[in-house]
Amino acid sequence: MTRTLAIGPYNDAEKQGLATAFDPVFLDHPGAIAGLDAQHRDLVTTVAYKGHSAFGAAEMGHLPQLGLVANYGVGYDSIDVATATARGVKVTNTPDVLNDDVADLAVAMLIMQAREMERASRWARSGKWAERGEYRLTRKVSGGRVGIVGLGRIGRDIAERLAAFKMEVHYWSRTEKDTPGWTYHPDPVALAGRVDYLVVALVGGPETEAFVSRDVIQALGPHGILVNISRGSTVEEAALLEALETGRIAGAALDVFCNEPKIDPRFYALDNVVIQPHTGSGTVETRAAMAKLQRDNIGAFLAGAPLMTPVN
Amino acid sequence: MTRTLAIGPYNDAEKQGLATAFDPVFLDHPGAIAGLDAQHRDLVTTVAYKGHSAFGAAEMGHLPQLGLVANYGVGYDSIDVATATARGVKVTNTPDVLNDDVADLAVAMLIMQAREMERASRWARSGKWAERGEYRLTRKVSGGRVGIVGLGRIGRDIAERLAAFKMEVHYWSRTEKDTPGWTYHPDPVALAGRVDYLVVALVGGPETEAFVSRDVIQALGPHGILVNISRGSTVEEAALLEALETGRIAGAALDVFCNEPKIDPRFYALDNVVIQPHTGSGTVETRAAMAKLQRDNIGAFLAGAPLMTPVN
Repeated sequence: MTRTLAIGPYNDAEKQGLATAFDPVFLDHPGAIAGLDAQHRDLVTTVAYKGHSAFGAAEMGHLPQLGLVANYGVGYDSIDVATATARGVKVTNTPDVLNDDVADLAVAMLIMQAREMERASRWARSGKWAERGEYRLTRKVSGGRVGIVGLGRIGRDIAERLAAFKMEVHYWSRTEKDTPGWTYHPDPVALAGRVDYLVVALVGGPETEAFVSRDVIQALGPHGILVNISRGSTVEEAALLEALETGRIAGAALDVFCNEPKIDPRFYALDNVVIQPHTGSGTVETRAAMAKLQRDNIGAFLAGAPLMTPVN
Repeated sequence: MTRTLAIGPYNDAEKQGLATAFDPVFLDHPGAIAGLDAQHRDLVTTVAYKGHSAFGAAEMGHLPQLGLVANYGVGYDSIDVATATARGVKVTNTPDVLNDDVADLAVAMLIMQAREMERASRWARSGKWAERGEYRLTRKVSGGRVGIVGLGRIGRDIAERLAAFKMEVHYWSRTEKDTPGWTYHPDPVALAGRVDYLVVALVGGPETEAFVSRDVIQALGPHGILVNISRGSTVEEAALLEALETGRIAGAALDVFCNEPKIDPRFYALDNVVIQPHTGSGTVETRAAMAKLQRDNIGAFLAGAPLMTPVN
């Protein structure tokens, strides 16, 4: 019997890769672990994890020999790392290989929202362009002021792209970073008050829950546009919805939501929001690289070699 | 009676600006010139021009004292400059002030098409995300190869932005330019064969008519995406439509079309095209800057001072 479980919504290519390398048992969801017979569970040393369901003490408790949870994705907020560490379980993730895709999407979402590109597309496709003339004027992006909340690897990649649009870059981070002329703000409310666009690139998890608070959203103001490519949990969603519904901010561009994919239907009624279905890293090339890095971590663990990208 | 005619679809702010400065007579269309009485036409020295209707020998012939056609827009292909020059009429345009907006839109359209952002938005908003799961994987943009056709000011601004996406930049231009490591291709077909994305940033007019020919489109190939923010006339539209309909190229992102705004309805049936209603320069900030530059050219002309941005 295999020592490896592969848990989550893997696509065919990913299943093939895992099957060839490790011949794991595939489970759709961590809730299915308890249904495995005890003899099998006692053998499992390795979990290849994907998805946003919680993987914590209960799940680990079913796998007494567990030594590695290899997460597919850079964000590992679904996994209870503190419990894993306490149990001697290593956790790995797939950083860096997805930075480009997430940054590309963030920049395009920001411009789409500011330039009203979805509405303009409908204007053209509905025949209104021919009947009623030019689409209304929108707002200029280049030369504007952007604030990055969380200047980790992805935040930096976003800032570097936006700098090529001649934007003035401001950021919040836990500590000031060595940056090329960007302005550090230790207070996220002050940051939001200084910029036209606020791009959230925080890690997920309890520490950043609702970090982009009602006060931050309020400070962004009626000209402000919020972009979130991190986790839905990092933004106080009730405050965001209210601000969007009442025009207290100009708009938002969101790849992530609380309770995704069953997102709050109030978002659907808004025409000042660009909605993407958490496709930040969703390209063929990047998902293949993430799957490979996950496999490489598992392979290293099983061979007793150093892990490629350990989290704990 | 005023010496100035303002011809074209000006918005309220633009009309106000022109009225305050020059108290012109406003005409919706150059065809209305002939309807002015001869005494008035004989006084006109200056035309503030906007729009895509032809302004040529017939129109100039109605205005014997005409000395300036000040175009609103960088592209002045609607104006017969050769005839203007022969008649001693100066032509001005509004270069540079719109480069940023056009480049911003080009980059966002490229990413929107590659990452299928409009379709993914519909996937989320229709509830399919909740019912059927993740949107399908798309293609990575960063690190790809882009070819710019026409490396003028706007083409260069697009290339500089895309370089920040770690893209390999290739270009065609009438002559090789001094560029930071970008690759020059004297043959547009060879250029199209080398790249994943082809961005058209040519000037309009008869010299570039269908420059992006059937052969260029064919060379771009089934993985290729065409972006056009220049003029519809620069692309052989019949060949483009065929290639999009048959999958001989992967997709297109178009801000300009032949016969716009009454564009070919075959475009509406395609889901591999991002359509924008010629909004390249369509922001409040940039249109105000264009209007000001047009007024500054007229003011200079009327004062006998050097023109700001002469074309001939």
